[in-house]
Amino acid sequence: MSKDAFRARLEGTAAAIESLLDRLLSSSPMPGEIARPPRVLDAMRYAMLGGGKRLRPHLVVETARLFGREDEGVLRAAAAVECVHGYSLVHDDLPAMDDDELRRGKPTVHRAFDVATAILAGDGLLTLAFDMLADTPTDPDPAVRIALVLALSRASGLGGMVGGQMLDLEAEGRFAADGKPIAGSEEDTLRLQAMKTGAILAASVDMGAIIGRAEDSQRNALAAYGRALGQAFQVADDLLDAEGEADLVGKATGKDAARGKATLVSLYGVDGARSRLRRLVDEARDSLTAFGPAGDALARTAVFVAERQS
Amino acid sequence: MSKDAFRARLEGTAAAIESLLDRLLSSSPMPGEIARPPRVLDAMRYAMLGGGKRLRPHLVVETARLFGREDEGVLRAAAAVECVHGYSLVHDDLPAMDDDELRRGKPTVHRAFDVATAILAGDGLLTLAFDMLADTPTDPDPAVRIALVLALSRASGLGGMVGGQMLDLEAEGRFAADGKPIAGSEEDTLRLQAMKTGAILAASVDMGAIIGRAEDSQRNALAAYGRALGQAFQVADDLLDAEGEADLVGKATGKDAARGKATLVSLYGVDGARSRLRRLVDEARDSLTAFGPAGDALARTAVFVAERQS
Repeated sequence: MSKDAFRARLEGTAAAIESLLDRLLSSSPMPGEIARPPRVLDAMRYAMLGGGKRLRPHLVVETARLFGREDEGVLRAAAAVECVHGYSLVHDDLPAMDDDELRRGKPTVHRAFDVATAILAGDGLLTLAFDMLADTPTDPDPAVRIALVLALSRASGLGGMVGGQMLDLEAEGRFAADGKPIAGSEEDTLRLQAMKTGAILAASVDMGAIIGRAEDSQRNALAAYGRALGQAFQVADDLLDAEGEADLVGKATGKDAARGKATLVSLYGVDGARSRLRRLVDEARDSLTAFGPAGDALARTAVFVAERQS
Repeated sequence: MSKDAFRARLEGTAAAIESLLDRLLSSSPMPGEIARPPRVLDAMRYAMLGGGKRLRPHLVVETARLFGREDEGVLRAAAAVECVHGYSLVHDDLPAMDDDELRRGKPTVHRAFDVATAILAGDGLLTLAFDMLADTPTDPDPAVRIALVLALSRASGLGGMVGGQMLDLEAEGRFAADGKPIAGSEEDTLRLQAMKTGAILAASVDMGAIIGRAEDSQRNALAAYGRALGQAFQVADDLLDAEGEADLVGKATGKDAARGKATLVSLYGVDGARSRLRRLVDEARDSLTAFGPAGDALARTAVFVAERQS
């Protein structure tokens, strides 16, 4: 697969997700809903529409495609993961959390609206994600839908993304008596990152495998891919924060160093982080050999994640 | 069923839920979870353990019992609803929302911990609720589990509890240029309450019917019961806020009047609200006639909801 063909796939999925989210976040209540109050709906739309790479949906879509599934159900599963990602950004940006003012170059939800609306918009997106997975159009088989709910909930909750954000605040010394960042060991830092960002990337791949009815051996190979990809994503993220240009990255950079927080760059140095990144990309690609040329899109995704500039 | 027998049932369910939540919120990660960071786990335990009437679990349990189901799966569904209720209280109490300092007579989660931890604890509880419903021990049939997820998500999200809290903040004039409460019409007030508190009470009953594999006619009768019960709950709540003693209610009273917010008491007066309450209790009880004496526990629940002092 050429670089251009890969870009076309990535952008095709992003456009399809944008369009599906636009429909799902319409002002018409779904059956069982009483009404959709405009203010919180607007905040949810503001958080979710208007672009982004849609990397997590792309992982769901490309993994499902390995098994010949390319349909609205797959896109719904992909959009559900994106809603969980979006909710986590809205809540993490809040003043009481990371206190960020910009996200993808525009004011964060609590700046564009207000804190209460941002909390509710996040809550609404998290709930919507499970709703979308559970509803019939995602897959005719309830056992598949329930497996999707479980994969996403485990990656998002206390033992995944929520717990990871907690560890991140603690690593910044938020609850330390002296307020100083805690010198995180390599093990601590890797666990924090596995929870905060790795788990949902791995879950995206797993959800593609679930909806594609992958056999156990295939699901295991894809799990190895997902783990390596998630780790590669985080090394690249730490490198971007250490070296990237804020206007390209679309949010403040150099924040980790300013906060004195342990990152893979502070642990391994820039060169060490770069070499780790190469190893992880190789590991991700190696996990896909059983799929032959059909695995090209996912293999290229690992390269894309490593080389991204934002 | 005598009043004492009813009390014993209510307290029995509360004890079983307390014990199940204590186990589910243990420090051991579930399969698929990486780790459970103690700080956010402690906040989730603080929010969920140590009592409460457990009215929503009681509704799930007593409805399922109509169909002969009394097992751990029913308790899991009941505990999931309680987690959603608990999350909503934690988030609603936040300074940016209702800014409450006391809940059931103890400091709210953000006072006992901090705002960031409270946001994350709420997010973790919401996610855990769907996780619990989706996991096999709740019911062997994935179609039943997925129906439970859907019933809870619709009641909790944008078109239910999340949307209701948004409308509530708007009704208080939070986003009005002059900051003054908006004079809500009867229709507005009833919709707000149906979303904010009614939907999850009705969902609790519906979830009991789902797990009990109720026939359509039974599910419809129970839906009518759930709607009437939810409305009765809210009238009673408004009466308590207007007339209750803060030390009995366990939270500040007179808040609605102080904020100038439209309630059923401001709309109908105390006597009008009391007579509406009686009608709703009758309506709830009448919906249960098809179940004969087996419906006694739910019938008495409607009376309990109307007469409660906290």
